[in-house]
Amino acid sequence: MRLQHFDWTSSGGLTLLDQTLLPGEERWLEISTVDALVEAIGALRVRGAPAIGITAAMGLVAALREHARESRAAFTTRVERDAARIRGARPTAVNLGWAMDRMVRRAGATPGEGGAVLAALEAEAQAIWDEDRAACLRLAEHGQPLLARMVTGARLRAGADEGEAGADDGTVNVLTHCNTGFLATGGIGTALGIVHLAGERGRRLHVWVDETRPLLQGSRLTAWELVRAGIPHTVIPDGAAAGLMARGRVDVCLVGADRIARNGDVANKIGTYPLAIAAARHRVPFYVAAPKSTFDPACGSGDEIPIEERRPEEVTKPLGVRAAPDASPAFNPAFDVTSADLIAGYVTEEGVLRPPF
Amino acid sequence: MRLQHFDWTSSGGLTLLDQTLLPGEERWLEISTVDALVEAIGALRVRGAPAIGITAAMGLVAALREHARESRAAFTTRVERDAARIRGARPTAVNLGWAMDRMVRRAGATPGEGGAVLAALEAEAQAIWDEDRAACLRLAEHGQPLLARMVTGARLRAGADEGEAGADDGTVNVLTHCNTGFLATGGIGTALGIVHLAGERGRRLHVWVDETRPLLQGSRLTAWELVRAGIPHTVIPDGAAAGLMARGRVDVCLVGADRIARNGDVANKIGTYPLAIAAARHRVPFYVAAPKSTFDPACGSGDEIPIEERRPEEVTKPLGVRAAPDASPAFNPAFDVTSADLIAGYVTEEGVLRPPF
Repeated sequence: MRLQHFDWTSSGGLTLLDQTLLPGEERWLEISTVDALVEAIGALRVRGAPAIGITAAMGLVAALREHARESRAAFTTRVERDAARIRGARPTAVNLGWAMDRMVRRAGATPGEGGAVLAALEAEAQAIWDEDRAACLRLAEHGQPLLARMVTGARLRAGADEGEAGADDGTVNVLTHCNTGFLATGGIGTALGIVHLAGERGRRLHVWVDETRPLLQGSRLTAWELVRAGIPHTVIPDGAAAGLMARGRVDVCLVGADRIARNGDVANKIGTYPLAIAAARHRVPFYVAAPKSTFDPACGSGDEIPIEERRPEEVTKPLGVRAAPDASPAFNPAFDVTSADLIAGYVTEEGVLRPPF
Repeated sequence: MRLQHFDWTSSGGLTLLDQTLLPGEERWLEISTVDALVEAIGALRVRGAPAIGITAAMGLVAALREHARESRAAFTTRVERDAARIRGARPTAVNLGWAMDRMVRRAGATPGEGGAVLAALEAEAQAIWDEDRAACLRLAEHGQPLLARMVTGARLRAGADEGEAGADDGTVNVLTHCNTGFLATGGIGTALGIVHLAGERGRRLHVWVDETRPLLQGSRLTAWELVRAGIPHTVIPDGAAAGLMARGRVDVCLVGADRIARNGDVANKIGTYPLAIAAARHRVPFYVAAPKSTFDPACGSGDEIPIEERRPEEVTKPLGVRAAPDASPAFNPAFDVTSADLIAGYVTEEGVLRPPF
């Protein structure tokens, strides 16, 4: 269970790592009721689109287990009702709705009484998980050739007096933003999955971890994953990335995506766009890693993507401590849009793509 | 005492606002001993190069006051000893040493016994303050023409659906980083002083305040100043600035400087450089505001400026709360270097300069 944040329990329940307590505490929750599952998803104890879908499907199975002796009619009605409740835990999470749809369809398509349907649903949840795990691996495999060292004038000039591990030993310095690792998926992750796979294969790597304000998913989650995986890394304030690139200390940027438009524009966690601009200035290759499901054929360009605003308190009260005057408003956009011209390629489970897709 | 963070007390002591408690609490300290002054400077209760120099000179006078009846010899010896102790409170603060030198020289050049020397030192401290106040005003005056609205395709496209105050009323949207206002100087400030002066004159302004990780001088200090000055503003995570520029919501960037090289490269608070890169991409004018004393003729270019590293805990424990695993190292450069090609001009008390200087 090394690079994993959820699993079946021995009694067929769901256990998951409470991400809201990271990195300070590693508390595993046992989920065997719909109430507990809805609470865990709603309170962001599990997050990341693929991870939410998978754990929701597994949690649904866990909650249904004690009703396996019900008749087919009673049981499938229960499946539909529970799935609807779970879906409501985070109504905007696309993968959650997709996973619940898939479970309800499977229930409807399976003959037999409650026990038989439950067995089919368990297989379906496992399939959802297995598919994501396999997709992460394929994506990470396609990303391996991108982990190459940049040789530039800046690096050559800087090499002698810079202090990070590996200035001379071939270490590849990756810069990443937010969390796109195993905590966000059912496998090793997307952008960070590329790093994890390389680490498992013994590649010399060092990761610059953007702390990723306001919610600090970089310092809280990505750094925690890298400690767990034993991969050398250094947390930085988001504003420090450009200066590192200027000094030749970044070989490649790997980030995830929330949505990718037809023209290649990418909506991702706030702070991605300035990274991409700085990378372009310093000719650092900037790659977006995301499963094919992130590509939105209905969206022509970044201009069409509405910018979701989150609560200002995430900015004015970092980690719950007041940092700004009560009278000061804050603007807290959840993501920004990186234009396609800044992106070297899109790493997916089907290979490295370039627009038009 | 509206835009002021220190003053003489009625009994000739020094009173100053404890900046470490902002924005939560406004506590004024009374300083009448060298011990108290050294503690206040060392603990960053007063910060900003000009402010440190001025309050050190005033605090020295306050501490000397009870010794006014001493002989000339005893008194001038005391001045030298106290000045040396005060200088040691922050050995790297250039303005602190400069102000203490000036006080010691004035003591040596003043005839008469303790009382006469004290009177001269009080006048000298007041002169140091008055000169800085006047320089801030002249700088701010030279900056006024820069507060102009940008008319771009992005703004025209964005104008209709964007929500900030003044999308259509001629409001100038300024973006700033760190704190460069009255809390950092003996006057209205440097980069933020331009904003304060415009505000006093009734210009329609709105300021985007970069929170400025890791120490949050933007949300803690700049936002507090703008509340106090009654100037509309919005705090943002540092990573949100580029997205705002992309949507035409920033007319001009105004930042300060720690050091300016002969070729125009600028060392300033970490996070300044990525702002400048984003501003260049979106053709947002990017100005550096700093007194002439910030220009370092001994420094040829940014490459020669060593990058000071601060404690990693400032990154891993924002506001004292743990955000990263204990096992994760952090890199905490105090500033970055913005290359001259990204800077539209240098606002000083002598006018808006452009290199070569």
